[in-house]
Formats: sequence, structure tokens, C-alpha cells
Amino acid sequence: MHVDDWSFYAGKPVLITGGCGFIGSNLALSLVAAGARVTLLDSMIPDYGGNLHNIAPIAEHVRLNISDLRDPHATEYLVRDQEVIFNLAGQVSHIDSMRDPVTDLEINAKAQLKLLETCRRVNPGARIVLTGTRQIYGRPRYTPVDEEHPVEPVDVNGVNCVAGEWYHLLYHKVYGLPAVILRLTNTYGPRQLLKHNRQGFIGWFVRLVCEDREIQIYGDGGQQRDLNYVSDVVRAILLAGQNERAVGRVYNLAGDTPISLKDLTEAMIRIAGRGRYTLVPWPEEKKRIDIGSIWCSYARIKEELGWQPLVGLEEGLEKTFKYYTNNLEKYLGPVDI
Amino acid sequence: MHVDDWSFYAGKPVLITGGCGFIGSNLALSLVAAGARVTLLDSMIPDYGGNLHNIAPIAEHVRLNISDLRDPHATEYLVRDQEVIFNLAGQVSHIDSMRDPVTDLEINAKAQLKLLETCRRVNPGARIVLTGTRQIYGRPRYTPVDEEHPVEPVDVNGVNCVAGEWYHLLYHKVYGLPAVILRLTNTYGPRQLLKHNRQGFIGWFVRLVCEDREIQIYGDGGQQRDLNYVSDVVRAILLAGQNERAVGRVYNLAGDTPISLKDLTEAMIRIAGRGRYTLVPWPEEKKRIDIGSIWCSYARIKEELGWQPLVGLEEGLEKTFKYYTNNLEKYLGPVDI
Repeated sequence: MHVDDWSFYAGKPVLITGGCGFIGSNLALSLVAAGARVTLLDSMIPDYGGNLHNIAPIAEHVRLNISDLRDPHATEYLVRDQEVIFNLAGQVSHIDSMRDPVTDLEINAKAQLKLLETCRRVNPGARIVLTGTRQIYGRPRYTPVDEEHPVEPVDVNGVNCVAGEWYHLLYHKVYGLPAVILRLTNTYGPRQLLKHNRQGFIGWFVRLVCEDREIQIYGDGGQQRDLNYVSDVVRAILLAGQNERAVGRVYNLAGDTPISLKDLTEAMIRIAGRGRYTLVPWPEEKKRIDIGSIWCSYARIKEELGWQPLVGLEEGLEKTFKYYTNNLEKYLGPVDI
Repeated sequence: MHVDDWSFYAGKPVLITGGCGFIGSNLALSLVAAGARVTLLDSMIPDYGGNLHNIAPIAEHVRLNISDLRDPHATEYLVRDQEVIFNLAGQVSHIDSMRDPVTDLEINAKAQLKLLETCRRVNPGARIVLTGTRQIYGRPRYTPVDEEHPVEPVDVNGVNCVAGEWYHLLYHKVYGLPAVILRLTNTYGPRQLLKHNRQGFIGWFVRLVCEDREIQIYGDGGQQRDLNYVSDVVRAILLAGQNERAVGRVYNLAGDTPISLKDLTEAMIRIAGRGRYTLVPWPEEKKRIDIGSIWCSYARIKEELGWQPLVGLEEGLEKTFKYYTNNLEKYLGPVDI
């Protein structure tokens, strides 16, 4: 039986960029529970994932700093004296990256490069854990996708995320910064953005189910994906922050078994006890950049850090819908509270 | 016997970014000879390759526009109504990219993305030929390196060049922009920057030989490279600009046979009739990012566009030293004339 030990973090100063977002806030809850001294950096850009309700349970136990990773002066001040930097801030909408590609570059590439330059100058010993995305693999040449799979991004966001990753690896190789890369797959659970449908399908499907509105699935719904419940992703991030073996490494996260979008939607509807769906033809512009079925392998992180997902889809969806049943209005926007 | 036909370009409006640089100016000479209506965009940044002496023979036959690719307004104006855009502008010093990584990103990634956005809006039908670099392959897993070799950049310049390339391919796939990528290997010949040693070894070695100063080669000089004489690179660029088959493709350029740095240096000294060299131990910081021997395959561009190098090393070096013997003072800086 696997038991995680987070005592490494007790009393340690740590920074979470994107700390009010979906994964950042869940991570913050765990770090506060572990006794870390937690600073949250979040830009609170309205269309992004930051939501003060996410951190309500720990509001008295963290230092909240609203600033943008693109602001080099604020970032430099916050980076000093941290022992671990959990670098989660990003523009994560593929759609937005095509509508406003330069902003995506500014956040996902340029601000990352500046953060690393800052760390090199003022805090080169801080562990940096970057949460990347398996989306950079593009249309998979084989499944499950391992870390040796070529990266072939299919949108501007993917290109900039690759650049952001590679800067981290380069600053490790050339300057010795102890950076770790996690490539996340589809993550779901409490505290996810539901305000709009431009940050991936899962949050949006959850919202439509909660509101008993019709989900539209493109094609026959046979495209397969793997999923991770957010607490499993948080465990991987914590392991990456404390394990010496992780330094300079790239790890995929992944689910245990892929599931088709149709089966996933049916599971959501069954567990939530509401919602419905219909199959609709592929819109031409979406079909053009669709990557088909994809799922990844977590063999490397299991071997090296002892991580594997512990929360199955049934349990994860139950927790997810329970959370949103009690908190839905906090996630409907447009104004964050 | 291979005969190139450049009548495609007669009367056509074409833009060369980086048009006063090494390859850009050689390309401009060929395009003027072919009867094209040539606009040159060059920032004339002192440490970069732009040099007005390069275009002296065609000064009356081109439109010279001194502006920076990072200036979106000037660029938009110049891009309108062009039929072919030869996109050669870039920060090409690996050393400078580590000293000032954000400037490298601004030029090699962000300005490229903005150029493509501009083309998409105001001139989506223009052919775009990007000159990338084989440097993005990093330390080769096998030789000769073909276009399927994974890209694994070893410095900030490499990361940003990959991003710049991928934006071009993406704008082709998603918006249909007719972009072509050439990955250049070590290029030499007349009009190359000799002012400093931060843009690759070849220009610097040529200068030291011309000035009869000692060349220092790291290690045993056994590292192998392939080279292209600049007129062969210009031919590849012209083919990429006119051949329908090239659209959306990535092509390596490469030399016929790799040569060790020691043998290359000895050939330079023999042909120039002056110069000398010594072997010195690897400086630690250079050793760390050295990629060892590398040479590429030009099989794909030979198959698809009929290109192969025509100028051998002996002939190329003779032309090179003849040019600099007559023009050396124009390449010693610091002030361009």
C-alpha cells in the first residue's frame, strides 16, 4: 500500500505560480496541510482559471500575491528565498492561442524564459517544477505515448509550451537549475474553470451536466483520452518537488485506462444523475486540428518516483460532482468573488 | 548537367528580410539578375550581419528599407503585395542568445509569429521561405542527420529557432500559408560577417586566415562538419520559392562530404596561402554545450526539388579568399559603410 510522506515541505517556503487556478489551488491546499509556507502568485486574468473561491479554505494560511508572471519586478521579488517553485501559471486555452498568438507567446514562452533568468540570477538553487502538457505530442504516432515520443505541436499554444519546457531543461543543463517537467494529461476535479468552453472539454462537460444542458460530441465520440483526478496530479507535483532523482527529468502523467469521449460522457451523466448528450458532425475547422485518440504512459514516473494514479474515474467523478453541486455558482462567472 | 531556370522571378515583387546580411545579399544579387523587383528589409543592428557593402553592386536596382522585423507597422507595409517573402532575418549568434535570451526570443520567435499573423491578414497567398538551421537537431543521434531526426536544441537560440519554424508550419497547416522551411548547415562565402567571432566559426576562421593570425581549434580538431558555399544555398532558396512541391515542406541543406575542423583549417590556410593554427584544450563552458560531429543529408531536397551542392570546397574557398582579399576592410567593422 502506497503512503505519501510530505513532511519534506514542513516549514519550507514555496511559491506557486498560477496559485489560484485549478491545479495550483489544489496543490496549495496540500502544501498548507503539509506545513509549508505558501506564497501564491496569480494574475487573476478574468478568462483564466484563477478563482479566489478556490483558496477560501486556506485564505488565512497563505500569502496571496496578485501579479502577472510577465511582470519581471514582482516576480523577482517573489522568487527570492523560495525553496521550491511550482510553476503552474500559463495561458492554457488552445483556442485563445490561435486568436491571440502573441499573448500566448508572452505568457507561455517569454515569461517562462524571464522567470528562469531571474532564478539563475537570484535563486539558482530553488527546485522548479513545471507543469507542461501532453498536448505537445500532437497527433500520436503510437499509444500509449511515452516521453521519447516526438513533440509535434498542432497549435500556437503547443509551440510555446514546448519552448517553455525546453528553456527549463536548458537552464538545468547549462546553469544547473534543478528543474523538473511534468507533462499533464486531461485533469479533472474540484476547482476547475467552468466559466467558458475554451480550456478543454472536461470542465465544460462537467458544467453542462451540472446544469442539465445538452453536451455535443463531435463525430461518433470514439476518440479516446486518459484522465487524472486532480489529487493524483497534486501528488505527482509534490513528488517532483521533493525527490532528488526528478531533477532534470521529464515525466508524463497519465490515467490507467483510456476511455472514449462517449463513454466518459455517459459515466458523467450516470454519476451526476443529470445531463444529456448528442453526437454531431465535426466542424471543419476543428476537424483540421483534431489529434484523434491519445493516451500516455506513466511508466517512467512510476519507476523513478513511485507515482501512479490512485483515484479511479468512478470515485473521481463522484467527488467532482459533489463539489460542484455545492459550489457551482462560484464557477459560473463572469465575476470572480 | 543541371541548369537552373530563374525566369519565374522575372518582374515579380519579392521581399528579403535580413536582405543586407550574408545570405540575404547574395540572394538579392541573384534575384536582381533574374529580373525580380526586390525589396530588402534589414535592421542594420551593428553586431548583426547587415552590411551595405554587401549590396553595393545592386544598390540602384533594389528598394532598401532599413527597419526591424520587430516593428509590426513597417513590416506590415512591406509585406503587402509581395509574391515571395524570403525570410532570412534573425539573431544567429548562439553565444548572444545565452547572454541576452529575451532579445533572441523577441527576434527569432515573437517577430516571426507576428510576421506570419501579418501575412495571414494582409497577404496570405505569398510564398514564404524561412531559412532555419540544422543547429536545432542538437547533438546528433545518427549521421547523416535527415529531416526526421528529433529536434533537441542545446541553447536558447535553438529553442527559439524551433518555435519560429513551427509557427511557419502551423500557419501553413491551419491557414494555408505557403511556407517552406530550409534548415541550413554551415554556410561560407563572400559577404559573411567577419566583425566578431560570435556567429559561428567559419567567418571567424576566414578572417584570421586573411589577417595571418593564429586559429585556435578546440580538442584534436576531429569534429566533423559539412559546409555549403553560399551560391548553392541561394539556389536552394530560389528553388524553394518557385517550386509548388516545396509548400509545407522542411528540407535540410548539406554538403557532399563532411570534413574535420582540422582538415578544413588546413585547406583554408593552403588555399589562402597564409594563416596558421594550433590545437588547444576545450574550455569547460564550451565543452558542455558542444554537439560533437554533425553532418546532414540533402536526399529529400534532391529528390523533391532537384537540388544538390555544385560548388566543391576547393572552388568555394578560392572564391571566398579572392573576395575578401579585395574587400577585407569592408568587413572588419565596427562601422558599416
